[in-house]
Amino acid sequence: MKWNELGSEPCSVARSVAAIGDRWTLMILRDCFLGVRRFDDFQARLGISRSIIADRLKRLVDEGVLRRDAYQDRPVRHEYRLTDKGLALHPVIMAIVHWGDVHYADETGPPLLHRHKACGCDFVPVMTCSACNDPLTARDVEVRPAGA
Amino acid sequence: MKWNELGSEPCSVARSVAAIGDRWTLMILRDCFLGVRRFDDFQARLGISRSIIADRLKRLVDEGVLRRDAYQDRPVRHEYRLTDKGLALHPVIMAIVHWGDVHYADETGPPLLHRHKACGCDFVPVMTCSACNDPLTARDVEVRPAGA
Repeated sequence: MKWNELGSEPCSVARSVAAIGDRWTLMILRDCFLGVRRFDDFQARLGISRSIIADRLKRLVDEGVLRRDAYQDRPVRHEYRLTDKGLALHPVIMAIVHWGDVHYADETGPPLLHRHKACGCDFVPVMTCSACNDPLTARDVEVRPAGA
Repeated sequence: MKWNELGSEPCSVARSVAAIGDRWTLMILRDCFLGVRRFDDFQARLGISRSIIADRLKRLVDEGVLRRDAYQDRPVRHEYRLTDKGLALHPVIMAIVHWGDVHYADETGPPLLHRHKACGCDFVPVMTCSACNDPLTARDVEVRPAGA
């Protein structure tokens, strides 16, 4: 399989990974959720070439994950904001953050803390079942093809 | 920043993405959660070169995400199984699956269904707060550096 055929695989991981399964794409999305919006800020934070950032931002706009809005007229300047489809990636990024916090934090602990505004507490994300609300692990889940 | 410096960034996304933020790595992990364990099965399912699969499997073993067990003596053959650290990636993969189901499913709907064995229902994953158990969206969360 060629990489650019992944998007047409009948698998939701393959389709998603074709859109976001790239190292720098994931780092850009992390920054989007931290409030970064401008090209130069992505560049300063990631320290990679402008062409890589331009390419990844364009792809995310093409996928409908980010939208590009003008925030200044002369000269025209754009910023990149998460669309609803992009905001829906929050559980993906939070799950990656949490896995990293658990498995790669050094002796100083997790670098960032997350507070749930409504209840006021620092939290970690917990994946639960939409039917019964109980927490889920891999061993609790059975997968089958739709229609089977 | 060079890609191989990402792992030393004080950010849990950067550290995680250094381990799993690769297209084929994510596809291999998807297959692991579907019960695939053998090199030839990964290869048959992904249809990519043996050297890419060998490289990604080795990296996942080095990271402690998979372990390599002999299942046959003559000739010796190995299988690859998720460790506890690997099983802890389940929320990452489920979040990616769900995002793909919502945003990339065609008219036939999601290709795979997930059943929660304990309650018997098909479900979608819901990210909740570990403190109050309420569902979370990006707008509900405030991020700050640890120690601030």
